[in-house]
Amino acid sequence: MALASSRHRDLELTDLPHHDGSENYVSQITPQLGETVSVRVRVPLSFAETSVHVRVVRDGEPRLSQARLVAETEAERWYEADVLVHNPVTNYRFFFARQDDYAWLNGEGTFFRDVPDASDFRLTVHAPAPHWLHEGVVYQIFPDRFARSENAVDLSQADLPDWVIVENDWNSDPIPSGPGVAEHFFGGDLDGIAEKLDYLKDLGVNTVYLTPVFPGRSNHRYDAATFDEVDPLLGGDAAYARLSAAVHERGMRLMGDITSNHTGVSHDWFRTAQADPTSDEHSFFYWTDEEPGYACWLEHPSLPKLNYHSQLLRERMIDGPDSVIGRWLQPPFSLDGWRVDVANMTGRWGTDDMTHDVARTIRTTINDVNPDSLLIAEHFHDASHDLDGAGWNGNMNYSAFTRPIWSWLADPANETPAFGLPAKINRTGGTDMVAVMRQFNSVVPFKVNRDHWNMLGSHDTPRLRTLVGDDMIEVALGLLVTYLGNPVIFAGDEVGLEGINGEHARKTMPWNDPSRWHDGIHATYRGLLSARSGSEALRTGGLRWVLITDETVAYVRSAADESVLVVVSRSAFDGAQLPASIGLEFGVDAASLLDSPVILYGSSALGFDGSVYELPKTGPSVHIWRLR
Amino acid sequence: MALASSRHRDLELTDLPHHDGSENYVSQITPQLGETVSVRVRVPLSFAETSVHVRVVRDGEPRLSQARLVAETEAERWYEADVLVHNPVTNYRFFFARQDDYAWLNGEGTFFRDVPDASDFRLTVHAPAPHWLHEGVVYQIFPDRFARSENAVDLSQADLPDWVIVENDWNSDPIPSGPGVAEHFFGGDLDGIAEKLDYLKDLGVNTVYLTPVFPGRSNHRYDAATFDEVDPLLGGDAAYARLSAAVHERGMRLMGDITSNHTGVSHDWFRTAQADPTSDEHSFFYWTDEEPGYACWLEHPSLPKLNYHSQLLRERMIDGPDSVIGRWLQPPFSLDGWRVDVANMTGRWGTDDMTHDVARTIRTTINDVNPDSLLIAEHFHDASHDLDGAGWNGNMNYSAFTRPIWSWLADPANETPAFGLPAKINRTGGTDMVAVMRQFNSVVPFKVNRDHWNMLGSHDTPRLRTLVGDDMIEVALGLLVTYLGNPVIFAGDEVGLEGINGEHARKTMPWNDPSRWHDGIHATYRGLLSARSGSEALRTGGLRWVLITDETVAYVRSAADESVLVVVSRSAFDGAQLPASIGLEFGVDAASLLDSPVILYGSSALGFDGSVYELPKTGPSVHIWRLR
Repeated sequence: MALASSRHRDLELTDLPHHDGSENYVSQITPQLGETVSVRVRVPLSFAETSVHVRVVRDGEPRLSQARLVAETEAERWYEADVLVHNPVTNYRFFFARQDDYAWLNGEGTFFRDVPDASDFRLTVHAPAPHWLHEGVVYQIFPDRFARSENAVDLSQADLPDWVIVENDWNSDPIPSGPGVAEHFFGGDLDGIAEKLDYLKDLGVNTVYLTPVFPGRSNHRYDAATFDEVDPLLGGDAAYARLSAAVHERGMRLMGDITSNHTGVSHDWFRTAQADPTSDEHSFFYWTDEEPGYACWLEHPSLPKLNYHSQLLRERMIDGPDSVIGRWLQPPFSLDGWRVDVANMTGRWGTDDMTHDVARTIRTTINDVNPDSLLIAEHFHDASHDLDGAGWNGNMNYSAFTRPIWSWLADPANETPAFGLPAKINRTGGTDMVAVMRQFNSVVPFKVNRDHWNMLGSHDTPRLRTLVGDDMIEVALGLLVTYLGNPVIFAGDEVGLEGINGEHARKTMPWNDPSRWHDGIHATYRGLLSARSGSEALRTGGLRWVLITDETVAYVRSAADESVLVVVSRSAFDGAQLPASIGLEFGVDAASLLDSPVILYGSSALGFDGSVYELPKTGPSVHIWRLR
Repeated sequence: MALASSRHRDLELTDLPHHDGSENYVSQITPQLGETVSVRVRVPLSFAETSVHVRVVRDGEPRLSQARLVAETEAERWYEADVLVHNPVTNYRFFFARQDDYAWLNGEGTFFRDVPDASDFRLTVHAPAPHWLHEGVVYQIFPDRFARSENAVDLSQADLPDWVIVENDWNSDPIPSGPGVAEHFFGGDLDGIAEKLDYLKDLGVNTVYLTPVFPGRSNHRYDAATFDEVDPLLGGDAAYARLSAAVHERGMRLMGDITSNHTGVSHDWFRTAQADPTSDEHSFFYWTDEEPGYACWLEHPSLPKLNYHSQLLRERMIDGPDSVIGRWLQPPFSLDGWRVDVANMTGRWGTDDMTHDVARTIRTTINDVNPDSLLIAEHFHDASHDLDGAGWNGNMNYSAFTRPIWSWLADPANETPAFGLPAKINRTGGTDMVAVMRQFNSVVPFKVNRDHWNMLGSHDTPRLRTLVGDDMIEVALGLLVTYLGNPVIFAGDEVGLEGINGEHARKTMPWNDPSRWHDGIHATYRGLLSARSGSEALRTGGLRWVLITDETVAYVRSAADESVLVVVSRSAFDGAQLPASIGLEFGVDAASLLDSPVILYGSSALGFDGSVYELPKTGPSVHIWRLR
């Protein structure tokens, strides 16, 4: 079980010190500037440290101060140190002197060599996302494909927009690529969604996230023609207001989707800007000497890029309650927040880099309208520099969650290209999967990682089932409902829809097609979502890795009153023993450990003799046990 | 020889692809905005890639484009790809599809898993340091301790400043700590330095760097009382002008040392500011409610921190030819640049972070006065965010050079504390040393790493000889003269001075004390410096790691017309074989390899049978061979 890397000097993971940014280890996760925060670290006796310090970077200069020994158990010593929050983002990590060497502990783990600051733990003065984010799961709906109500647009009518390619068979496949992919029109509507809210509620969903509802010239509507009204093809403003009311009546939340980076070429701002260089709107865009004469998203002339040098654009789009961003959070639509499309490019163009400023402005606007609102970025890649907490609350977590899990679980026989890469998915072991997860997580504050949206797929990717095959769905879902962050389910994944790419994945919900509705997968989703809903530790606790092998990984999620052990295997394995101390936290007595850990999910009991947990060797499997 | 880490999938280093930011691999290292640059990568046939792409981040979004196969040899395939420099700093890395997996190559090496962007290669539009930086080595002088001329201050005179503790015995030890450490005064002077320039020239020095010469109330003079004149105790302005003339007459360069972060409490700006809250100078500092009433460097009341919100401070201190920064670069002083003290904290205070702005302003000022001037930061730690090329040319490279080498070579019996840490120096293997060097280097553009100042010690650290012992001096120095960057020698290291900490290391040069002058060490310095001076590859070439073990490390430095193999061992080892392809670059024919590699330094010939190099097993040892 020793790790391959020399950096661990042949110690087991459970011999290494642990700290995370959760409330068990940090006295105040959202301090004021100037406040002193206590941070705690646990050190297994086997680590044999001779002293412990905390290293804090203040005004660019690190300082070390000695940590106080505050408790010693049969298994561990606990230390506490003070961190002055002098800067809005305050980096810290721990230093351990030992007899013959020293070690650092940062967000990526323990290193017996010097490390840069990028993976330091971080305190920030910025508030985290509202708590409701953690109270249920997010359900993503692509409105054209979810459900049709009686009010839905008549697909036989003559005056549908000219771009539309009508599909009369709700259960047919979307065009997966080439001509028609963006125009293939199934005619789902907002009232159709409203009719299915009880189904979602029953599944454990508390947040309904809709991809854009503004009119455009495509089925995906990321090419908005206006931000002022809801597409009449979806039912218009009135249907959106009805949906919002229905969502909120059930105690659920509604999230919008906004393209802050660009508009559609048919947008009224752009048409005015292009027609009249003296217009106010002319300043909203980047005009260039090259075809097509303006900057666009990835050179698509249909998507002109917004220029946030324009104060007037800021006023109209992002700044203040009357801006686009602010207005839709007000009645009768009362959105609970925005998912921001192409957040990674918003405000970036050549020498311009206004992304942080735009993100902060959007955050201020939504919080002014509703302090309980949520802001999630779309950033498929390394979002670390954009996630210090002043702007986006969290990210669509492809990089630290979706991709590494795909790599671990991808069916080796599957030739589906890795999303965005000219190769099939990399098949890696659990060691590499966890290395990716830890490295990407480590460059972002813990509380922001906790506010991420974790997906196993979306309208932009192949479907999970297609990638991993039926045998691994439960394993992937086990990670989704137990890992740090918030599960997002792309509509239809829970009944086993398939899809070879993002466009093909935008399949309709098979409400009336039993051949496409997989009851077994649905039951697995319900079971695992239910396990999460009953556990505060799984929803908001810290996370400590306790076992990392190529076939099996395990971690403990821990809240004030609960510790949960999660063990996920992609195959049968040799089993393992873990010390009882993994179930404890500072100030928690060993007597609080359950003599027989409670099975929250899985087929096998967890062996426990009072000092050591004995993992079952079954696999593929997901086990979740409550330890206290 | 396989690496421990699973990330290499048991391939040898020489089976892995290579790219670096040198001219062999990048068509234009300082492109204009909008320019397209060609980047090349070499791939050993044994790597078995099926395709190669380059991934470039543009406006926050990565794009992959296929690389062209441009050459194939018996050992390697070479690919080329285009990178559009759309942003001032443009990140890129390489992607390799293989039969069953894929891999990334970034500045840290090859990874068979996904990686964040921090270690991407980088193109920047900012000019590198002037070429003279690479033409010789830098010699650091602490003026109070280097030499006394006939003009030096009379130590018996009655009117020395009140803070001075006179030392009449030039050859005695400095007070190493406690009272008197900053006041112990030996009375070296600038004319004394001028008298020794031929000694420096002979050693291979082309840049003389003096720690501060402004008057203060200490022997180190980092507590400037004014920036307007040179300390009369050193000979005043006239002596500084004489020294500058003498340096430049010899074709050498003179570097100053400026505290941009703070002044001394006795500085005329601060005295005016404190006496008169309505004065212009009041805006130059941060005033607080806590003792002593103003912000200072690390809470030392003697060093009040400068506040760059003040436009007037900027004009006086950093902005324009008449500012302090600009003025000293003009005749008769004609400094060739500045080393900036506490650069990491300059402009940072609480919510303020003006460091990049201050650095850019200083850079603009010095380049306006003299386009051939140099700007080096003092940042002991992770400087990556401050080194994108618009401000500091390079850094005092403690983190990516000094510290990892100390860790590799520290005498295990030595109890000297690791600099800045409450523990003795970590004893690590070569694998960990190189991991630190590569990780810290990888987050900085290649051309900036090439412009760093590399030290084995300074006036702020223990002396090298004290840390590593006599047997390892040659090994450390072998790394100093061959590694990427520019060697800096702290005066006296070359004759074997010792010192247990920075203050104790500030020993006088033993010009007249043979007992403190070690001829053997001096000869080692002369020999290794001479090897460097004869090799363009060692001074400016790219760097490719070819062997990393705990006892021995090896790399190839390669320029257009020369490839040099460097092998450094801290003990005897098992030897190793390396393929002939390590001596080649794109477009260079195998016939250009020397049948018998030329020994630039070391005792043993390098075995070569036309296809494989055979390393000798001797150690501790330094070998430098020219391969072509």
